[in-house]
Amino acid sequence: MTNSASAQIGVTGLAVMGANLARNLAHHGYTVAVHNRSIEKTDKLLDEHGDEGSFVRAETMEELVAALEKPRRVLIMVKAGEPTDAVIDSLVPLMESGDVIIDGGNARFTDTIRREADLKEKGLNFVGAGVSGGEEGALNGPSIMPGGSTEAYESLGPMLEKISAQVDGTPCCVHIGPDGAGHFVKMVHNGIEYADMQLIGEAYHLLRTGLGKSPAEVAEVFTSWNTGELESYLVEITAQVLAQVDHTTGEPMVDVIKDAAEQKGTGRWTVQSALDLGVPVSGIAEAVFARALSGHTEQRAAVQGMSGGSTSWSVEDAERFTEDVRQALYASKVVAYAQGFDQIAAGSAEHDWDVDLGDMAMIWRGGCIIRATFLDRIKEAYDADERPVSLIVAPFFAEVVEQAQDSWRRVVVTATQAGIPIPGFASALSYYDALRAERLPAALTQGLRDFFGAHTYERVDAEGDFHTLWGEDGRPEVQA
Amino acid sequence: MTNSASAQIGVTGLAVMGANLARNLAHHGYTVAVHNRSIEKTDKLLDEHGDEGSFVRAETMEELVAALEKPRRVLIMVKAGEPTDAVIDSLVPLMESGDVIIDGGNARFTDTIRREADLKEKGLNFVGAGVSGGEEGALNGPSIMPGGSTEAYESLGPMLEKISAQVDGTPCCVHIGPDGAGHFVKMVHNGIEYADMQLIGEAYHLLRTGLGKSPAEVAEVFTSWNTGELESYLVEITAQVLAQVDHTTGEPMVDVIKDAAEQKGTGRWTVQSALDLGVPVSGIAEAVFARALSGHTEQRAAVQGMSGGSTSWSVEDAERFTEDVRQALYASKVVAYAQGFDQIAAGSAEHDWDVDLGDMAMIWRGGCIIRATFLDRIKEAYDADERPVSLIVAPFFAEVVEQAQDSWRRVVVTATQAGIPIPGFASALSYYDALRAERLPAALTQGLRDFFGAHTYERVDAEGDFHTLWGEDGRPEVQA
Repeated sequence: MTNSASAQIGVTGLAVMGANLARNLAHHGYTVAVHNRSIEKTDKLLDEHGDEGSFVRAETMEELVAALEKPRRVLIMVKAGEPTDAVIDSLVPLMESGDVIIDGGNARFTDTIRREADLKEKGLNFVGAGVSGGEEGALNGPSIMPGGSTEAYESLGPMLEKISAQVDGTPCCVHIGPDGAGHFVKMVHNGIEYADMQLIGEAYHLLRTGLGKSPAEVAEVFTSWNTGELESYLVEITAQVLAQVDHTTGEPMVDVIKDAAEQKGTGRWTVQSALDLGVPVSGIAEAVFARALSGHTEQRAAVQGMSGGSTSWSVEDAERFTEDVRQALYASKVVAYAQGFDQIAAGSAEHDWDVDLGDMAMIWRGGCIIRATFLDRIKEAYDADERPVSLIVAPFFAEVVEQAQDSWRRVVVTATQAGIPIPGFASALSYYDALRAERLPAALTQGLRDFFGAHTYERVDAEGDFHTLWGEDGRPEVQA
Repeated sequence: MTNSASAQIGVTGLAVMGANLARNLAHHGYTVAVHNRSIEKTDKLLDEHGDEGSFVRAETMEELVAALEKPRRVLIMVKAGEPTDAVIDSLVPLMESGDVIIDGGNARFTDTIRREADLKEKGLNFVGAGVSGGEEGALNGPSIMPGGSTEAYESLGPMLEKISAQVDGTPCCVHIGPDGAGHFVKMVHNGIEYADMQLIGEAYHLLRTGLGKSPAEVAEVFTSWNTGELESYLVEITAQVLAQVDHTTGEPMVDVIKDAAEQKGTGRWTVQSALDLGVPVSGIAEAVFARALSGHTEQRAAVQGMSGGSTSWSVEDAERFTEDVRQALYASKVVAYAQGFDQIAAGSAEHDWDVDLGDMAMIWRGGCIIRATFLDRIKEAYDADERPVSLIVAPFFAEVVEQAQDSWRRVVVTATQAGIPIPGFASALSYYDALRAERLPAALTQGLRDFFGAHTYERVDAEGDFHTLWGEDGRPEVQA
């Protein structure tokens, strides 16, 4: 350990994510100054892992900054929101023009835009960096989504690319775009993760409740799925979670866990942002609401006794149905990713970020929670000469979705008849059918809006905004 | 016309809603001072309707305020957002302690909270009043949802109750609660309206595309539905819109209208607020997203050629299926209203508004867009000694939903097999099935979250937060 200004980066906030990122940086040969509000966590890190690389112990923010070579780089790993602002406020007076402050937390991208603008005025670089991969990713290579100025990325990028996950020799880190772009993309990543987990949950629920498989048997199904098109981290660990037995009771762990899912902010923020952008992310919304619903225990208890009518389970061939569920899961996942990428494109257009969609798929191939083989195909789709207007129509995915049709519909039908909730599968299929439809009842909606609110409508055969004197003579008036 | 300070209320902003509210006030014997940024609109109103009652023409804001008896009451009817703030800013210096400013636009409730607090500091009363009913309601009796102080309501309430719709001698206006309560409730009202219109659209789409009925024939179905449990303004005018023939082409009007539905802010805001409150309003969200999707014409054109697989229309008995659709519509509506009322309850709890849910149903019985016979039943449900934890479990609606089960499931199944999008019906049914489920896959979600992020979980058989060392020995650690 040394106390001269020799550290290449400082990390403040040494909860598990911060500590693991600090260790990851040290493993890659960087000298890392480490600081935490309470020194106990700093000392615990140094006691347990101090021999893994070169660390500088900083008791105060002043010591942390003094330990850094210039331009200084400080990575903040504290709770999103006010704690982040508090740390920034205490750092700013200690730093100099050209220094870089990195927020590696799950900040709301609008906060990142605000902070970047504030610090730019003070001559400081602010990088809002999304970091995905959980504890394990932070330690061994996460997917990193840094947003901010090109100058800041030049100083910081090589370091982040080195500690990120690598897939086929390519780092899972790229400069996303200016100011809030990184945290925006990380937010949508998490939204997609919500949808992905909800769909996996529905697949499990059908195999468990419908086919009557045990958690261990469903685990085997997921293990086999993980050797094919669905190969992904989430499918892999689903098998592990389902195979886990509780040591206390000997029961399957999944039966011992209370079925009330929690959420932090990012899934909710994704849907809120999508609403502002006018992008229908129904799959992500259903996933966020499914978590909210699961926690409404009082309502669930009250409704539980109610009838589902003459529900029945009509599956005769369990193996074929399992394959149907696999196809439904795959197609619904394609819809969820299509919606998420649409949102990134819309956010990028709204904020002039110029985000490269292919790059996003590329840096999600490793390190992050939604890492999956099929991200290679998404990258190819968005790297094509002509960017597809939806992932669904990119040739590879169009074939996936079309091939899954009959299975997908059988799964929705079977679950509906059996009374098993499938908000994700059903919503994704309705999204696809709505996009496919030649005409939508939105024409009726427009008619009703014009009827009660004179909101006007467009016509299929003429330009302009029209209003009908409904209920009078029905003669349309052209509006200004 | 007179120019002394004799008017009981002033209206500024004389677009159709403002002008009609001014006329409505005048019809009820009030002297109304009228003002618009451009005097032409004021003069147009007075030219065309000046003989309907007692008006005072105000060229300037100063004249408007000077025309009012004290405590002064000024109703602002301008575009929500900055225009409202601009009008408030120009009014404030002209007004005195105890005067009342009313915002009758579709303001975001958080803006109303801010404005009310600002004006209270200046000694002024600010009332954010939701007004529903469109042009016709504004003129002949809208549903009014005023929020603000008790003092303000004492001054203003009798007037608003007089011009509101009356049902069985009861005005469709009640003091909702402090500050933003009125605009919050109006926002949720509009969210429910979105869901209601989406469900009606799906019902129409099934009868039209599935059963092959003409718009005029579907109009007849809606007319007959309007004589029963579904009796409501929206069902009534759906029949009228569908029966309308375009004068230019001779085609059904609904076929001439472009099927891209538009939205203003309130549907979106409802879902965004529900996400913050943790209330699953999936039916409203699907409706907002369905509108957004309908406007993505480029994506729709690209997906339109894609296959739906071996879709088929399996209905043999058109009459029975029509009744199935009616039942599905009714049950899905109950879900949408249950979700909306849950959101009002949650918003009221969050902001200490003490909103009476039964009163909300009562004042929506007339005047507003979602007025319907079954609001009497909702009022009864929430007026019961023990408030139901969900509208779904209130005895009357529990029976509705249970009786609809088989029809509802048949409709979702039939549409799914036919490739007709039914995001609203399917989402509502999954919501019900999820609440009904003894166990949800949320347990798996919690397991996955604990696996990759050490987010911990609760157990079904013990208190506390637990973490499992997944993939190691699986032994749970109790967390602090």
